[in-house]
Amino acid sequence: MTLSSTVDQKQPVHIPKKLLSDSREASAINIDEIHAFLEGSVKVSASIKEMLGQLAGDPVLASGVKYYDYTKAEHRELAVKKIARLALYLENDVKQTRKVYHKDLIRDIQSPDAPLMTIQDMELFERRFSLIALIDPQVATRFGVNVSLFGNCVKGNGTDEQIKYWLQERGLLLGKGIYGCFAMTELGHGSDVANLQTLATYDKETDTFKITTPDLVATKWWIGGAAHSATHATVYARLIVEGKDYGVKTFVVPLRDPKTMEVLPSISIGDIGSKMGRDGIDNGWIQFHGVVIPREYMLSRFTKVIPGNPPKVDLEPLLDSVSGYTALLAGRVGMVMDSYRFGSRFSTIATRYAVCRQQFGEFNNETQLIEYPLHQYRVIPQIAISYLIAPAAMKLSRTYGNVLNDLYAAGDDKKRLITVSAKLKDLFIESASLKATNTWLVATLIDELRQSCGGHGYSSYNGFGKGYNDWVVQCTWEGDNNVLCLTSGKSILKKFGDIAKGKEVVNYDPSLSYLKTDFVQKVVFSSTKSIGNLANLDDYRDIWAVALIKYLKYCGEIVRKNKDPNSISKALVSIAKFHAFHSMLQEFHRKLSSDTDSCVSDESTKEVLWMVYKLFSVYFIDKFSGEFLQLKVFSPDQMTSIIQPQLLSLLPEVKTHAVRLTDAFQLPDIIINSPIGYYDGDVYHNYFNDVTKVAAEDSTPGAPPYTERLTSFLGRGFEFDRLGGINDQVFKKLGK
Amino acid sequence: MTLSSTVDQKQPVHIPKKLLSDSREASAINIDEIHAFLEGSVKVSASIKEMLGQLAGDPVLASGVKYYDYTKAEHRELAVKKIARLALYLENDVKQTRKVYHKDLIRDIQSPDAPLMTIQDMELFERRFSLIALIDPQVATRFGVNVSLFGNCVKGNGTDEQIKYWLQERGLLLGKGIYGCFAMTELGHGSDVANLQTLATYDKETDTFKITTPDLVATKWWIGGAAHSATHATVYARLIVEGKDYGVKTFVVPLRDPKTMEVLPSISIGDIGSKMGRDGIDNGWIQFHGVVIPREYMLSRFTKVIPGNPPKVDLEPLLDSVSGYTALLAGRVGMVMDSYRFGSRFSTIATRYAVCRQQFGEFNNETQLIEYPLHQYRVIPQIAISYLIAPAAMKLSRTYGNVLNDLYAAGDDKKRLITVSAKLKDLFIESASLKATNTWLVATLIDELRQSCGGHGYSSYNGFGKGYNDWVVQCTWEGDNNVLCLTSGKSILKKFGDIAKGKEVVNYDPSLSYLKTDFVQKVVFSSTKSIGNLANLDDYRDIWAVALIKYLKYCGEIVRKNKDPNSISKALVSIAKFHAFHSMLQEFHRKLSSDTDSCVSDESTKEVLWMVYKLFSVYFIDKFSGEFLQLKVFSPDQMTSIIQPQLLSLLPEVKTHAVRLTDAFQLPDIIINSPIGYYDGDVYHNYFNDVTKVAAEDSTPGAPPYTERLTSFLGRGFEFDRLGGINDQVFKKLGK
Repeated sequence: MTLSSTVDQKQPVHIPKKLLSDSREASAINIDEIHAFLEGSVKVSASIKEMLGQLAGDPVLASGVKYYDYTKAEHRELAVKKIARLALYLENDVKQTRKVYHKDLIRDIQSPDAPLMTIQDMELFERRFSLIALIDPQVATRFGVNVSLFGNCVKGNGTDEQIKYWLQERGLLLGKGIYGCFAMTELGHGSDVANLQTLATYDKETDTFKITTPDLVATKWWIGGAAHSATHATVYARLIVEGKDYGVKTFVVPLRDPKTMEVLPSISIGDIGSKMGRDGIDNGWIQFHGVVIPREYMLSRFTKVIPGNPPKVDLEPLLDSVSGYTALLAGRVGMVMDSYRFGSRFSTIATRYAVCRQQFGEFNNETQLIEYPLHQYRVIPQIAISYLIAPAAMKLSRTYGNVLNDLYAAGDDKKRLITVSAKLKDLFIESASLKATNTWLVATLIDELRQSCGGHGYSSYNGFGKGYNDWVVQCTWEGDNNVLCLTSGKSILKKFGDIAKGKEVVNYDPSLSYLKTDFVQKVVFSSTKSIGNLANLDDYRDIWAVALIKYLKYCGEIVRKNKDPNSISKALVSIAKFHAFHSMLQEFHRKLSSDTDSCVSDESTKEVLWMVYKLFSVYFIDKFSGEFLQLKVFSPDQMTSIIQPQLLSLLPEVKTHAVRLTDAFQLPDIIINSPIGYYDGDVYHNYFNDVTKVAAEDSTPGAPPYTERLTSFLGRGFEFDRLGGINDQVFKKLGK
Repeated sequence: MTLSSTVDQKQPVHIPKKLLSDSREASAINIDEIHAFLEGSVKVSASIKEMLGQLAGDPVLASGVKYYDYTKAEHRELAVKKIARLALYLENDVKQTRKVYHKDLIRDIQSPDAPLMTIQDMELFERRFSLIALIDPQVATRFGVNVSLFGNCVKGNGTDEQIKYWLQERGLLLGKGIYGCFAMTELGHGSDVANLQTLATYDKETDTFKITTPDLVATKWWIGGAAHSATHATVYARLIVEGKDYGVKTFVVPLRDPKTMEVLPSISIGDIGSKMGRDGIDNGWIQFHGVVIPREYMLSRFTKVIPGNPPKVDLEPLLDSVSGYTALLAGRVGMVMDSYRFGSRFSTIATRYAVCRQQFGEFNNETQLIEYPLHQYRVIPQIAISYLIAPAAMKLSRTYGNVLNDLYAAGDDKKRLITVSAKLKDLFIESASLKATNTWLVATLIDELRQSCGGHGYSSYNGFGKGYNDWVVQCTWEGDNNVLCLTSGKSILKKFGDIAKGKEVVNYDPSLSYLKTDFVQKVVFSSTKSIGNLANLDDYRDIWAVALIKYLKYCGEIVRKNKDPNSISKALVSIAKFHAFHSMLQEFHRKLSSDTDSCVSDESTKEVLWMVYKLFSVYFIDKFSGEFLQLKVFSPDQMTSIIQPQLLSLLPEVKTHAVRLTDAFQLPDIIINSPIGYYDGDVYHNYFNDVTKVAAEDSTPGAPPYTERLTSFLGRGFEFDRLGGINDQVFKKLGK
């Protein structure tokens, strides 16, 4: 009774496969059109499907349930094996993008006279990368620190020559030659970059910098790649010239010999050991004990040290601040995409399990979990969340690409740079609020869906455990979610304040469209009440804009009274979330109603997608009903007569299509990597087979390797036996 | 720069130790009185302190940060080493309780003519056990399955002779002789015990049962202890006599030879492998291929098979259902206690870190995290949660002990058993709602406090990761939280319905005191409005009772209209939570205002405890403000004019005492086991020292063990090199 079941025909039979296929047949929505809608276009959808096939079939990159049993050391080594393979895909993707197969393209790119690579060169690999971030997030991060964090730090702060040298000639952007890490955070400082303590002291005599860790607290900490793999670091350190502190700038510091991987002199490096998740990343700590680097290794697009006696420092404050925005931006944008992909994987697993699992009810015809309204409430909105993230994620990627293109195209043109700077600020609001809101949503999604799978959700082999542990760091890194919400909430409030003062506010990102004088006036003078009836599709989006304006007004009034901006920090976090919800509804709405861009021609499919859109809005209105009511966007009676009934009626409607809505994510079983969530729905056989397969590689069950430990304590005698055979009589004599 | 810091005196200095001791000095609350308040009495407080000292000083039981690096195999073996040691403490605790040191007490207890052990015999060990559940939860569970789950199953379902034989003579309750597991859940059925499929078929000829697993789905699954350590199981199986199915009963089935630990014939056992947490438990699966056991191994206090031709089955349905309540009850009661202990540990860590960590602000005088209102909102209410759980947990333990005593004392007296049955039903409501609500609260608490510690919260060595992973299964096992809330919500609604119909409702648990005719009438006829002003201490408790009645009325009306009880399942979950909040506030209030029982004589300490009480109430009114507003317990204006300002003003008030409020939990550093949360506040040195100590036992940092994997892909050549030295000219020739 291992690989198949010996069913006693008199027993009630569970046929989860049939339940799942029945559920599939009950819906006729077009999952290929939906996939194109989610991924952005028919072309991208085809490309994603091809890549999923490549990754699922790759002997190194595909995982299987054994993945959940690896030790930290095994994960670390396996990650490098996978990265080596990704580097080959990377070369190939660049070739495919440039459509160059007839010559040795990579050699050309690495030659000193090659032109700079563009964002477009990496487009295909970026897409592949977003899939890797789903399949094995630690591998994506470990490689991402090199290509993306080190790479973007050099791109954002280096001169063209520096960019070309470090990223192309040395090979970094192609995953070869050298391996970079991003040495920003210290033991004592994370989000607060301006207060970092590492020193880069200029020595005019030798025209060099000396990099020093002045204090234990200044130890570079959490640095991905530092413990094992990095040969170079972009180090954030205070520029000190002639005793004057010019603030934190960036420097390329060699750490290891790329031929031997031995650490260079004057550098201490250590492993920071085990983490809650992502143990495949070799995070480390670094201390610099007076490491000397040539002046040329300072990334000096915006800040230059000019040798001489005395030396001069050439600063461009505006441009410097522009560069400050870009380093972590790519990560945040990527995390919104990750939110969609993680959401899609776990909602697929939980939906299939909810259809296949039967519990309570008639002995021979138990009720499927998905039929319980409470279970629908737990699972179905999570599908909607994944759906609403997708278009917003794609839009954010596009905006990011466009703004970065503008930035690089602007060169030193100050006028253009001022515009780019404003665009970057809008992009900051949008990316920060979407990153924070969605990484939180998906942390909750994984947790709630794990619980919805009962005990089996707690088995490592169903993926939720590692999924959650790998995921939740996204709420902290690249900007702590609370700090990001506060900052973007403040920026939104600032714009609102300007409008209130009658100033002109220019919004570069359409997500900020509600910050317009006429709309603000409409809300304030209460001519937006009809929106609350949710009679039109637009209303499900606009109600959030109304709530935002009322919330901003409320905050503005409090601060005007008490002069204490800290008193509204909790509200600002909510404002950033409301902004994100509005933005997601807005882009979903725009895309689905677009004649040219929706990818969905089947009307009944479109109708289901609109139900998903409504469900998302109504679900979160209910979740935030306290705020909606306090802001008087709704009256209590409207909540119970409009929102609650809509929520209750949408759930079973979307439920009918739930399986196909998750099929539409088109994730192969090997990427699902959770036997209770495979495509065929043969839940119990798949799970039993996977578990017994993996356990068989482990030690023999039955008598355990430490049998003697068990038998010796179970078989122990009595106290007086253990006291060298003392008995009652001897014992009593002792007292005499 | 490893074990101490070489501080550059010109650098800004972080002295977190000083910040923490300053914060301690700022408050004069009496932490010993508080400890007695939390633990229940001065006597218990002293006992807990003694035990904490014993455990912290025990060479086997104390953990240290290395604990976070063990593999599954290491955790499994270490768990047994710890259990062997716990068995010795267990013997000792029984001796201490009975005050018997002058003879071999355990030998007496194991002798066939010994009287039955009582609940009181285990009181001391239960207390120790609740600390073990904090220090190493997997060990507590693994031993608890044996002593508590197997033990309570036998106690609840066995005859006195069976109880005495299995638990005393064979030694199980003393952690010796045999080792039990609890074989209830199957691959296909968890919460739905009535639909389990394993068969126990009576054979009248041989007077035996044959235990059979009829289908793969009927495989016993998740059975703690089955994979390695259990010698016996209490198996839940359908009693089949003469072809008739009498439903699920319990049977003791031997699994392994206790001398060799080899699995007995006709039994398949396997390891179910890795889990999200608690890998030290050897959960396994079991299949029975016609295992024959004597009739006498059926636990037959309430159901007896009487041999003969035909054999008879003697059933006592009422008593049978009583026994059904008790098996998982102890676990639920224990989990409320666990919630307090886990909450206390993590709130201590996060509070100390929030005081010690500085971020943003002046370069040389950065702001402590705890000074930010948003950070106060994230951390301080979590302390309040731990405080409010404690008295409720102690009260629940007492009630449980009393009701179980009543049950055992009732013997076969039906009249008394009917009363006990009613008490058990009230205890079910109370334990289910407190278990579900608090295990959820603490899952959120660990997660939010981890985030409040930024990146360092994600390091394994600060405990949040394993803490969370070990914790969250509490939301699923011993009754899935949603199912428990639904069931207890339904029971509450049933009582309310009876009151509405004018029936008399008897409440045995004071937590149900709001379900009284006169109070219901008061709420319904709106004479409770003044409570909403929160003018008196009582109001913070009573407002929840008002909300409960309004909620119940709301649910009753919906069901009366739509006749669909499923439509209110989401509301019933909230009702169970509201009941738990009310119950916690009620017991905290009762104890603190008691002249004889509060343990707190210092008035200023008492005042701070009342602030904590208020904060808890107000924090959750705000969290559930959507429901409070929809039920019209508050108007939107009351929310913004009463609740919000109170919440904002209570946070900084409680903050002043936050460090001492967590000191009052009196947890030694080795039990805190998180270097950012040790008592002295030397956060950075402690953390650095712990990490480097553990990492030094790992492989050498610098060049990793898999250097060649790195150098080979970094040093790879170009495509045309790799193609066996092909070059442009050769390449072009190929096309000719």
